[in-house]
Amino acid sequence: MTARTDGPVLVVGTGLLGASIGLALRAVGVDVFLEDVSRGAVDLAADYGAGVPLPADGEPRLVVVAVPPDQIAEVAARCLERFPRALVTDVGSVKQYPLAGLRDAGADLSRYLGSHPLAGRERGGAISARADLFLARPWVISPHDGTAPDQVRVLEDLVLDVGATPVILGPAEHDASVGLVSHVPQLVASAMAARLVPAPGAALGIAGQGLRDVTRIASSSPELWVQILGANASAVVPVLDALAKDLATVADALRDQDRAGARRAVAEVLAAGNAGVSRLPGKHGQDARFASLVVLIDDRPGQIARLLTEIGELGINLEDFRLEHSPGAPIGICEVAVLPEVRDRLERELTTRGWRIAG
Amino acid sequence: MTARTDGPVLVVGTGLLGASIGLALRAVGVDVFLEDVSRGAVDLAADYGAGVPLPADGEPRLVVVAVPPDQIAEVAARCLERFPRALVTDVGSVKQYPLAGLRDAGADLSRYLGSHPLAGRERGGAISARADLFLARPWVISPHDGTAPDQVRVLEDLVLDVGATPVILGPAEHDASVGLVSHVPQLVASAMAARLVPAPGAALGIAGQGLRDVTRIASSSPELWVQILGANASAVVPVLDALAKDLATVADALRDQDRAGARRAVAEVLAAGNAGVSRLPGKHGQDARFASLVVLIDDRPGQIARLLTEIGELGINLEDFRLEHSPGAPIGICEVAVLPEVRDRLERELTTRGWRIAG
Repeated sequence: MTARTDGPVLVVGTGLLGASIGLALRAVGVDVFLEDVSRGAVDLAADYGAGVPLPADGEPRLVVVAVPPDQIAEVAARCLERFPRALVTDVGSVKQYPLAGLRDAGADLSRYLGSHPLAGRERGGAISARADLFLARPWVISPHDGTAPDQVRVLEDLVLDVGATPVILGPAEHDASVGLVSHVPQLVASAMAARLVPAPGAALGIAGQGLRDVTRIASSSPELWVQILGANASAVVPVLDALAKDLATVADALRDQDRAGARRAVAEVLAAGNAGVSRLPGKHGQDARFASLVVLIDDRPGQIARLLTEIGELGINLEDFRLEHSPGAPIGICEVAVLPEVRDRLERELTTRGWRIAG
Repeated sequence: MTARTDGPVLVVGTGLLGASIGLALRAVGVDVFLEDVSRGAVDLAADYGAGVPLPADGEPRLVVVAVPPDQIAEVAARCLERFPRALVTDVGSVKQYPLAGLRDAGADLSRYLGSHPLAGRERGGAISARADLFLARPWVISPHDGTAPDQVRVLEDLVLDVGATPVILGPAEHDASVGLVSHVPQLVASAMAARLVPAPGAALGIAGQGLRDVTRIASSSPELWVQILGANASAVVPVLDALAKDLATVADALRDQDRAGARRAVAEVLAAGNAGVSRLPGKHGQDARFASLVVLIDDRPGQIARLLTEIGELGINLEDFRLEHSPGAPIGICEVAVLPEVRDRLERELTTRGWRIAG
């Protein structure tokens, strides 16, 4: 695979995002320089294959600032000065705030173009970095008034090189969007989880998957999120207010259920929830990178191995695999995920070999 | 396996829960009668193996009412009259409301003992029923003033026969618990998802797994949930009020970030969210029924099949299997789930055969 990006690329900040960008670019042969306030963090990322420490005479064509939100403007401004021929981007969760910070600092905005990969993991740090972190994920490129079209193309090349999907959204539109689909959900999850602090053990003992899903992201770092929320307050507050109003309407209706329309008020929020969740693209939870095949198997030891042995004999690499079976039931269900381009061949070959394919 | 339960058991209402109870009881040899207002629903559940349609002279020892919440009291009262020697239970999500309804109807409460299995699937109906739906899930038994200890034991036998874990919680304690861990999370998910209705497509296009998790249960049935929430309003409202107060505090702090303590107010809700989510028992998302083993493998076709072949040769049945690998990385990570009692043997055997075990 030939890279589109003209290196070298300097990644400043070698945490999860920075190191993953390095790994992904190295995988397509782009030269990557690494820099971090922590020498240990740079060494770890370099050992992991994300690039090499920035040489004294290193002249990057593109700088990716991957530092915490409240340091982006300062670090980006310094990079614009240090590398007067480089395009500088950042990967922060908010786009108007660093732009305003750079403008206030009198930075050369003609070479700054912000961006935001919608990707992450629950575990942070270079040790959790993955070359495929960005695969099939949206990566917002956020042009401002002073952005030239060819600069957008430079970033698009980077985004495509790491396997992500470029999405062009101006800073205000980006911030409103993430306020809704990322920042308010974070607060909702945190506020729900906060209710568990004074809960009796008996209540926690009967908690199920629903609560676990609603509160999963509540384990996020408060330090990071105070910065993100503070930097995007104007987008977050109206959504939060509207949501709180819905919850207050439900609480009032439940307090006074004999009131005309009380039941309907509760039903409307629930029905709007149905409508809202159905607008989310893609089947819930499915990994968009892979195609899947459902195979029915006899549920006894050795059958799954036989299936996977035959898949291996076909030279097809297994990307994921899930098994569902009911105890005592004569049949199990295997969901096999493979690269989309080999799915149909796999179905044909397995059918020929006598496997029952359910979909 | 010998059943503890003395049948026959009559299941009234052959939806997901009713049919799954039938399947689970039949799997251990208990006689099950089925009844539903829909003849088609009974036939489907019977064909699926959940039991037989209630014969005209059928005399159940135990009746399980598995109908929608607002019909429980009426159906249970009728069952208490029709089967004067049977213990009658229900599987509704709220426990004080049907008890009050039965009391108002002058029913014989000495033979009614409510219960609530904390289990379900996103898809409803007998067609989604599973014999293992209740495996390792909590099933609340909710004694009231008129309950005799041997009646609790009868229900415990049923709960153990279907593989669930009996949890004894009085009706008020139960309702407060599910208000917190189930009913308020439902409203929070719905209210968050409702904000997506007016969202521009660009925002939805960059939505990630966090929002999907927070809103997953928002696809639940409004009809069902209006009933549940209405029946448990006194437990739901205080939690909802406290949650709304936290969100209002955050919104106010974000509106006026220069105010003293504004940043701290936001951080406190996020930190309380950390603390709350960490109180949830068990590793997030892990299936409590199984023990897992992490095996490092060379990431090339055939290696996974070889691993699974060897597991099959050991006579160990694979319960679940997950694969993680980074394209181009020399190593993949397999998480293998097996029954807890064979985990240590599997680790020893695989180590002997040269596999690298990471945990």
